[in-house]
Amino acid sequence: MKNTVESVLIIGLGMIGSSIALASRSKGIKVYGYDLDSPSLKLALKEKIIDESIENFDEVNNKKFGEKVDLIIVSVPPRKTQEVFNQLQEIWNTSITITDTSSVKNHIKLDGADNIVLSHPIAGSHKSGALAADKDLFFNKKNVICNPFNADEEHLNRLINYWEDAIQMNTSIMSVSDHDLIFAMTSHLPHLISYALIDSIRLSNADVNENAGGGLKEFLRLSSSNSEMWSDIFTLNRVDLIKALAGFQISINNLLELITEAKEIPDVFNHLSILKEELDEIKSFKEENF
Amino acid sequence: MKNTVESVLIIGLGMIGSSIALASRSKGIKVYGYDLDSPSLKLALKEKIIDESIENFDEVNNKKFGEKVDLIIVSVPPRKTQEVFNQLQEIWNTSITITDTSSVKNHIKLDGADNIVLSHPIAGSHKSGALAADKDLFFNKKNVICNPFNADEEHLNRLINYWEDAIQMNTSIMSVSDHDLIFAMTSHLPHLISYALIDSIRLSNADVNENAGGGLKEFLRLSSSNSEMWSDIFTLNRVDLIKALAGFQISINNLLELITEAKEIPDVFNHLSILKEELDEIKSFKEENF
Repeated sequence: MKNTVESVLIIGLGMIGSSIALASRSKGIKVYGYDLDSPSLKLALKEKIIDESIENFDEVNNKKFGEKVDLIIVSVPPRKTQEVFNQLQEIWNTSITITDTSSVKNHIKLDGADNIVLSHPIAGSHKSGALAADKDLFFNKKNVICNPFNADEEHLNRLINYWEDAIQMNTSIMSVSDHDLIFAMTSHLPHLISYALIDSIRLSNADVNENAGGGLKEFLRLSSSNSEMWSDIFTLNRVDLIKALAGFQISINNLLELITEAKEIPDVFNHLSILKEELDEIKSFKEENF
Repeated sequence: MKNTVESVLIIGLGMIGSSIALASRSKGIKVYGYDLDSPSLKLALKEKIIDESIENFDEVNNKKFGEKVDLIIVSVPPRKTQEVFNQLQEIWNTSITITDTSSVKNHIKLDGADNIVLSHPIAGSHKSGALAADKDLFFNKKNVICNPFNADEEHLNRLINYWEDAIQMNTSIMSVSDHDLIFAMTSHLPHLISYALIDSIRLSNADVNENAGGGLKEFLRLSSSNSEMWSDIFTLNRVDLIKALAGFQISINNLLELITEAKEIPDVFNHLSILKEELDEIKSFKEENF
């Protein structure tokens, strides 16, 4: 088994899979592509996102496929990741390294696959589809690796090498439970909140068209993200998402209490010092920590 | 009374006031500056943000000041705006046009000032201070004008001319109640939510430093905004903010219900259609409306 990756199959040629394909090709790695959606597959080939297309999935789920490909990246919505892993059962425990790109991990259950390691390459794009592919999408970004099935070290090292050397990402290793809770707080909850905020404006019938104030556009960007992927993430990570939401509600209620109890202060240039201190503290946490 | 503005006094040389100063100077308008904080005033002069500094506020609150300046822009935190307007009482009902830049308006109460018109130039920057001044900050942006004191048409027109011709903004006129509700929904609530989200992460002690997921950075930007200004906005616009928050909580609960009630669907490539439809609907509203 080679330590490096010379050829990769990407299953699922959406924005994420296609961006990985472009980055791999730019490093001289041969890229095969498969997509259940035949027009998407043809498009990827035509746009030179992949070198070759795999037309028949049976070719992949076959031990002989290891002669062709070192690494398979399953880049489909989170719920489908488990299904595709199941469909690859013939090549579990072979020399092919298998990974994914899902933003949530706790739902992935496998029994005895020493060549499957999970990856979460992190990019903050709200775009979707192969035409939004960007070979630099992941350059210098983070990639969290989870190894819940105790894959062989050879597979783990090959995968880390690939993300670091070929795609030029920074990897770190984390447990599935840490991963899912941290991303519930820092990514899944912000997206849920954005959908809810835009929904509440939609339901209010307020005439905001011409008057979207400073602050809304960040929420608009997040709420325009791929809805299939996000409905999967929200439901699959609902336990941690609800934990994160509970914390958020406590903080919102604390701020609300300060806001509603605030008294008018007669001094001309005075201000509501407690609320300001609280906001300053939040702001300084940010400056220290990120 | 001239229809155009040849000289302006800016009271409060923070990021907003200083940016207006730079834009005005670039159009050949003479800019006087005043700031209660003497080092800030000196800095603005040194950095050529203003042409001349006013050292003594008594000079301003004097009918003779109309010989020097056509327009006064009060660019201080929202709560202080009312105080500064009160301190300018000697020049109420004179040929000097007076306006502000506050993001909230309902707290501004004046009795008999036919030369005061309110402005809200909208820029989405989280920066603060004179050194963050940008002469193009407001270029092509929106400016909502409120005229709750029925100012003379001459003052109103001069102010509109100034924002449109000199600062090159697009103005629209709105009632104070519409203004405050719309900006509660599109700006004040997004900021409150961002502070609460970052606060909840801070309180969780989760090790997010290296792992801030896609989605968090927008919230980080908003929660790093000027805390004095935002504590003023939140408290002064609390009634509309709480209305907006109530709508948000309804939307979050609706989404949460869909998420927690979602059933696993056995079909391999199926997905949670209702939640996805809801997210699609929110997304399409965005695409149509903004």
